[in-house]
Amino acid sequence: MASLGQITELRNFGAATIHEAQGAKGALDSGMKPIDPTSSLAGPALTVDARPADNLILHYALLKAKPGDVLVVDAKGFMEAGPWGDVLTLQAMKAGIAGLVINGCVRDANSIIGMGFPVFCRGLSIKSTAKNQPGKVNIPIMMGDVFIHPGDIIVGDRDGLVVVAQDEVDSVIASSRVREQKEDQIRKAIEHGATTAELMKLADTFQRHGLD
Amino acid sequence: MASLGQITELRNFGAATIHEAQGAKGALDSGMKPIDPTSSLAGPALTVDARPADNLILHYALLKAKPGDVLVVDAKGFMEAGPWGDVLTLQAMKAGIAGLVINGCVRDANSIIGMGFPVFCRGLSIKSTAKNQPGKVNIPIMMGDVFIHPGDIIVGDRDGLVVVAQDEVDSVIASSRVREQKEDQIRKAIEHGATTAELMKLADTFQRHGLD
Amino acid sequence: MASLGQITELRNFGAATIHEAQGAKGALDSGMKPIDPTSSLAGPALTVDARPADNLILHYALLKAKPGDVLVVDAKGFMEAGPWGDVLTLQAMKAGIAGLVINGCVRDANSIIGMGFPVFCRGLSIKSTAKNQPGKVNIPIMMGDVFIHPGDIIVGDRDGLVVVAQDEVDSVIASSRVREQKEDQIRKAIEHGATTAELMKLADTFQRHGLD
Amino acid sequence: MASLGQITELRNFGAATIHEAQGAKGALDSGMKPIDPTSSLAGPALTVDARPADNLILHYALLKAKPGDVLVVDAKGFMEAGPWGDVLTLQAMKAGIAGLVINGCVRDANSIIGMGFPVFCRGLSIKSTAKNQPGKVNIPIMMGDVFIHPGDIIVGDRDGLVVVAQDEVDSVIASSRVREQKEDQIRKAIEHGATTAELMKLADTFQRHGLD
Amino acid sequence: MASLGQITELRNFGAATIHEAQGAKGALDSGMKPIDPTSSLAGPALTVDARPADNLILHYALLKAKPGDVLVVDAKGFMEAGPWGDVLTLQAMKAGIAGLVINGCVRDANSIIGMGFPVFCRGLSIKSTAKNQPGKVNIPIMMGDVFIHPGDIIVGDRDGLVVVAQDEVDSVIASSRVREQKEDQIRKAIEHGATTAELMKLADTFQRHGLD
Amino acid sequence: MASLGQITELRNFGAATIHEAQGAKGALDSGMKPIDPTSSLAGPALTVDARPADNLILHYALLKAKPGDVLVVDAKGFMEAGPWGDVLTLQAMKAGIAGLVINGCVRDANSIIGMGFPVFCRGLSIKSTAKNQPGKVNIPIMMGDVFIHPGDIIVGDRDGLVVVAQDEVDSVIASSRVREQKEDQIRKAIEHGATTAELMKLADTFQRHGLD
Repeated sequence: MASLGQITELRNFGAATIHEAQGAKGALDSGMKPIDPTSSLAGPALTVDARPADNLILHYALLKAKPGDVLVVDAKGFMEAGPWGDVLTLQAMKAGIAGLVINGCVRDANSIIGMGFPVFCRGLSIKSTAKNQPGKVNIPIMMGDVFIHPGDIIVGDRDGLVVVAQDEVDSVIASSRVREQKEDQIRKAIEHGATTAELMKLADTFQRHGLD
Repeated sequence: MASLGQITELRNFGAATIHEAQGAKGALDSGMKPIDPTSSLAGPALTVDARPADNLILHYALLKAKPGDVLVVDAKGFMEAGPWGDVLTLQAMKAGIAGLVINGCVRDANSIIGMGFPVFCRGLSIKSTAKNQPGKVNIPIMMGDVFIHPGDIIVGDRDGLVVVAQDEVDSVIASSRVREQKEDQIRKAIEHGATTAELMKLADTFQRHGLD
Repeated sequence: MASLGQITELRNFGAATIHEAQGAKGALDSGMKPIDPTSSLAGPALTVDARPADNLILHYALLKAKPGDVLVVDAKGFMEAGPWGDVLTLQAMKAGIAGLVINGCVRDANSIIGMGFPVFCRGLSIKSTAKNQPGKVNIPIMMGDVFIHPGDIIVGDRDGLVVVAQDEVDSVIASSRVREQKEDQIRKAIEHGATTAELMKLADTFQRHGLD
Repeated sequence: MASLGQITELRNFGAATIHEAQGAKGALDSGMKPIDPTSSLAGPALTVDARPADNLILHYALLKAKPGDVLVVDAKGFMEAGPWGDVLTLQAMKAGIAGLVINGCVRDANSIIGMGFPVFCRGLSIKSTAKNQPGKVNIPIMMGDVFIHPGDIIVGDRDGLVVVAQDEVDSVIASSRVREQKEDQIRKAIEHGATTAELMKLADTFQRHGLD
Repeated sequence: MASLGQITELRNFGAATIHEAQGAKGALDSGMKPIDPTSSLAGPALTVDARPADNLILHYALLKAKPGDVLVVDAKGFMEAGPWGDVLTLQAMKAGIAGLVINGCVRDANSIIGMGFPVFCRGLSIKSTAKNQPGKVNIPIMMGDVFIHPGDIIVGDRDGLVVVAQDEVDSVIASSRVREQKEDQIRKAIEHGATTAELMKLADTFQRHGLD
Repeated sequence: MASLGQITELRNFGAATIHEAQGAKGALDSGMKPIDPTSSLAGPALTVDARPADNLILHYALLKAKPGDVLVVDAKGFMEAGPWGDVLTLQAMKAGIAGLVINGCVRDANSIIGMGFPVFCRGLSIKSTAKNQPGKVNIPIMMGDVFIHPGDIIVGDRDGLVVVAQDEVDSVIASSRVREQKEDQIRKAIEHGATTAELMKLADTFQRHGLD
């Protein structure tokens, strides 16, 4: 299981770095974004399979969540309902939940941002939901073109979201560190006048395509 | 007719609360949002039926508007024209108009936000419009999946927009107050350790769906 | 060639004014927007024809750019890749490039905004790109429904983007000034109680359409 | 109430003619189309307010439908569920229902087309639905940007769908006849060499816009 | 491994039946459809991870395919390139490949339909592709919101596509047969006057929601 | 000017072949398609710059068209109006016009298909249009990401549309012939057992990317 230090380190790397460091995989599609662009999150996924326009299973999921978990909810991409609002946010914060990622919309954005709770979603909708539909928690889900297992670490920031498999956390952190160091060196070299073309040794590829 | 106090109270409830308090109706679709997420509005609708990429009828509507009115314009959802800009905003503010809701785009967003005039729309477009097409004012219109009569109260904030029928203002305010009180109690109970599942008595439904 | 003074003046007019002043042409579609709504840019276009999800040609373009240039990149509108990030931004700033306009997505938005580099795009994606595909620089491109020649001046702000042909810079500045003066007069007249209907002499058109 | 003869006549006019004949109103948005482009339908609407991805209320609606009714179902535009298939089609045909219009998707398209039952929708989805959510029948609904009352006549063909208010059937049929006769005359005149510009007396408008 | 008989039986069940029979899972999103609505396909997936607008890996995949395989290609949903046309179709048919499923577009639709080769995709594009980008074959891929392993059976028809895990073929066939028998009984009962509400025992649920 | 023989030859090549033969340029975006998938067209463009939801300029354009012309109309991509129907089709056919390409929608699809008039568009809409807006004919237009000059040859079929510059007709025909011959040879070689990988000499590229 990822330690708190590892989760913090992953959040600090940011989603784009992790995606590249782990071999260009695990990125959710570009339509999933934070409601507050300055927020970020990281934590193990408590996965939820929900139905559109019904939030019964979200109330249930809150009973199962552990402190530090991120609720990762597939609400099937439906834009015309807001199954999450300030009341659920309050209970989530009481339970120590680290944030919400939902394939769908939320409401009460002003309150949620004011409370400092990170929410990643597809948009905002004031339309209310019913509490009639079943659902599942802690099962593998597919959303945003990514397969997410319970316990996978999900990391998000203004750029988007990425998922790290539980058993790859150590290696992804290692490769992210390597990548950051390499990027730091590149940045320093650029400051000293080098070009990315030189630093990334692109001359051959340029030549093969007749770019001179 | 709704009093100024009632309109202020509706704005303070916010769109999501009103939508639920009046029985989950009257919400415009999730694509209509404020250009300044911190702004909000409320007021009786001066409805306008416009054609895409032509703003003749907007100039006309400004002659008919009364202080406190919200211009509610169906520009047919066309994204590639900005029939409203800073000049119309200035005249609207001179006329005491409370805000604009347009099924389409606007331009001069920086100026409009600087002037503090609430605008809800689908996006921003710099493309200019002609002044050749007819239109109608103060007739029932359908936009954003909602039927809006002249004089209906429209309320908007970061989450979106909702319409309250003129003759339901009293009852919607009453039920919104009830809803707010109930939510306050729920919040307090959550602070004291209760769960939404308990507070909303969801145990039976959980059980029916095999969620335990 | 446009002088620095002309480019500054064009940026100050803003995209919407220029679009209308040059006869309602040259506007990119409404989906292209700044990642930081407070930013603006203006400069001669260094055009780039790129392929989706590959940024080889961007590294090449940076070798060809002159201070003040704006990189104008057709990445084919693909939303699921971010071919531009903070490292390219750093090199672009070292080269004195005035900004980036890309028909596609970018990543590292927080860093880019922090560095103060203007970027206009369709969204944010963390997905990384390859460096295998050819491309072209300084050729005419079509993107966002606009035909852009190398050296055309591109101007952008919160409202969107507009392109001014190199040989029309003088006349567009002249007509933009006229338009601004006219709008100033209209604003003053409105402050003194006139209506846009009067000022734009719309009475006849109203009458033709039965609007009285 | 519209007679069978009137309903047949409306279907023969077609959606586009009726829309224009009744004053350019009542058209559903362009995303609603027949699954079989050769099919058409007309009949009084049995309106249904459904929730996305749940078809309990459709089973209920079939109990309430009368022969000749068209089921007009607002399934909230959700694309990832097919709440209607061949079994419901069979029962609908047994009950003499004239067709289905659904703001959403269906499945079993091959079977439904083979059975000759007209279906208008947004697409096809194989995803199954639950039977947990409530709904309403025979209430006014808004879908596709149109307000539909129970008993309104809905007419559809390859071009799309239009709604005729119950108390306007007589006048719409009259004006549709007039329009068809006028179009027939125009067609004959064109066959004899006239132009639409002459026949519609557009010379003045051309001139006003400098088109000569 | 699924036998030819099993694959034929799965194709005959159709995508919608299989989806429901295997517990409402495995359905690709509603945007993936056959270019010829009368065609259908079934076979084990030869999975391909491609980059947008490049078909090098498709040429490679054809070298690896076995008779009866279905090429299942994630081209990242890019609409503005057609990486598959009639030449690749010819070679695929020579190799005995059963069909193509591509998260993207194809070209030469008339020829492909004439050759009788089943193709499921998001649309048609004449834009040509390069042959520069790497890719992968026979690895797990995610597309259309579904996780697909090499060798999974993919089944498609006019309604859409569904994936059956290799080790669930037996059980899915069994449950599909049960489902078909049950639906046959329901159809017969409907023919004899029963309603779906009776047959599916919905009275209690109706009552709980006040539907009588 | 292109001869009738040349235009026929271009139509027979088809849009995809021409696009590739002329260096992967001139393709309109994938959203523009024939309303009858079996139809095709080719001819010199009579370009029209129209405003959304107004067809005055279409009536005017018909007065200016020459036999064999294709009307190429930028209606700004607006989906909720059908500015072209069966009456305009009749007059167009009387004038010998070869077809219509419109960046927008049409209506009366059944009649138009029955009349055998090729129409390429974005969809069908029954919504009627006004006749108030100006427009331009025979000016350069940009639509579908392509720059079209009056007199350019536009070619369309089920796959989509491509534009050939007037002064490149000879060379594009020549290179299309070469391409067809080459593709014929490739087809024959495939029939005899060769693979596209061999025929297109992809071994080196495979190797560079580790594909063996």
